[in-house]
Amino acid sequence: MDQSHGERRALWVFAHPRQESLNAALRDAGVASLREDGWTVDVADLYAERFDPVLIDGGGEDVRAYQQRLLAADLLVLQFPLWWYGMPAILKGWIDRTFERGFAYDVVDPDTGRARKYGDGGLAGRRALAVVTAGDRQASISPRGISGDIEDIFWTLLHGTFFYTGMDALTPHVLTGVHGATDNMVRVMTEGLRRRLRTVTTEEPIAYLPMTDEHYDHSIALHAHIAAGESGGRAHRAGPVPRA
Amino acid sequence: MDQSHGERRALWVFAHPRQESLNAALRDAGVASLREDGWTVDVADLYAERFDPVLIDGGGEDVRAYQQRLLAADLLVLQFPLWWYGMPAILKGWIDRTFERGFAYDVVDPDTGRARKYGDGGLAGRRALAVVTAGDRQASISPRGISGDIEDIFWTLLHGTFFYTGMDALTPHVLTGVHGATDNMVRVMTEGLRRRLRTVTTEEPIAYLPMTDEHYDHSIALHAHIAAGESGGRAHRAGPVPRA
Repeated sequence: MDQSHGERRALWVFAHPRQESLNAALRDAGVASLREDGWTVDVADLYAERFDPVLIDGGGEDVRAYQQRLLAADLLVLQFPLWWYGMPAILKGWIDRTFERGFAYDVVDPDTGRARKYGDGGLAGRRALAVVTAGDRQASISPRGISGDIEDIFWTLLHGTFFYTGMDALTPHVLTGVHGATDNMVRVMTEGLRRRLRTVTTEEPIAYLPMTDEHYDHSIALHAHIAAGESGGRAHRAGPVPRA
Repeated sequence: MDQSHGERRALWVFAHPRQESLNAALRDAGVASLREDGWTVDVADLYAERFDPVLIDGGGEDVRAYQQRLLAADLLVLQFPLWWYGMPAILKGWIDRTFERGFAYDVVDPDTGRARKYGDGGLAGRRALAVVTAGDRQASISPRGISGDIEDIFWTLLHGTFFYTGMDALTPHVLTGVHGATDNMVRVMTEGLRRRLRTVTTEEPIAYLPMTDEHYDHSIALHAHIAAGESGGRAHRAGPVPRA
């Protein structure tokens, strides 16, 4: 996924049931912004494509097609409204079904026989961005807010999914207090998203520690001297631990 | 939900696609154990009931029926394999669709006009337990394990869903390293689950702070003197902050 040559490609996965929604307006603005910047954008509208999120036996023609669309992308955008502090089921199931073992993780390295994951999965070389709308007020989603911080809420997506499969996890673009947004607020939010998308190739991803002997012991817990005394998601970041 | 009189009722929601699985064996053992202890247990097998997890417009006859089954229960058990450090889509969608606004949260108090949530939602008086199987080794799911601690992984379920809707969140019953479990390991795990279930009415739930003026400011962030200097999920617990 060398981005210095040829075109840049994005897969924009959209998981909102309504086309007249704020989310649809954000999607349209975001996709347009990327295209203006020269990206080729493939939009996967899961509701419109009538995606079936229920994993039963694995595989399926639809899954193969989504995997190809994912492999073709340098950037994965997951856009969704925050439901129960997580993804809508249709999007969770897209991950359950598309991110198969042997494709997104536990890809066996032919030289070493090692099953690649945590910073080195099958989707390595890609960047991943979550674009999320939430009804909560901004202060509620903060290091000391009642709903937890962005990194608390999205730990399993950022570290356990994006980073696990080898992607560089970007800081989520979270829009809060979206219920009853006025036209002016929608304009401010779409402009903010456009600005944010201009930095997706240059900004620093979240610096999670790779799963190497340098950082983790044989049980895959942090060595005592790494982020000494810390626990929780922040302990797994390189550099100083961010504080409230 | 006064449990001192009459029968105790549980709703056991099962979200695994296969009946010959470890999960099915655990479900059978768990349900039998509760029944032996005098519980009336209603099993909702989401795959067998062909539940549709995709929320579009809300409502639906199936949702009304699940809401009634939930209201009838003193104890909610959600049993699932950990997929991408979260619930399978079919179970996430059960929450998306069943835990409707006005039913599970934002139930308006007729006296005060206040919309009840966070410790005081529409499901108050019930206890909730997640029973989870994971392929990860035990040390990987621990305060300094690479996958994060149980409370990091389940923050959005325990606090953002169970507690949000007013239920008492019990510490999840998590079984690790389950792939390729031998018959003897299955026996050990089913026995462990039976033992655990004997304490569901007497054990202390996770002591999350209620959303009151005593603990939270007008923006619903913690007052500076509550869990001073702490952030993340542990800051929202009463009493001393657990450490790694």
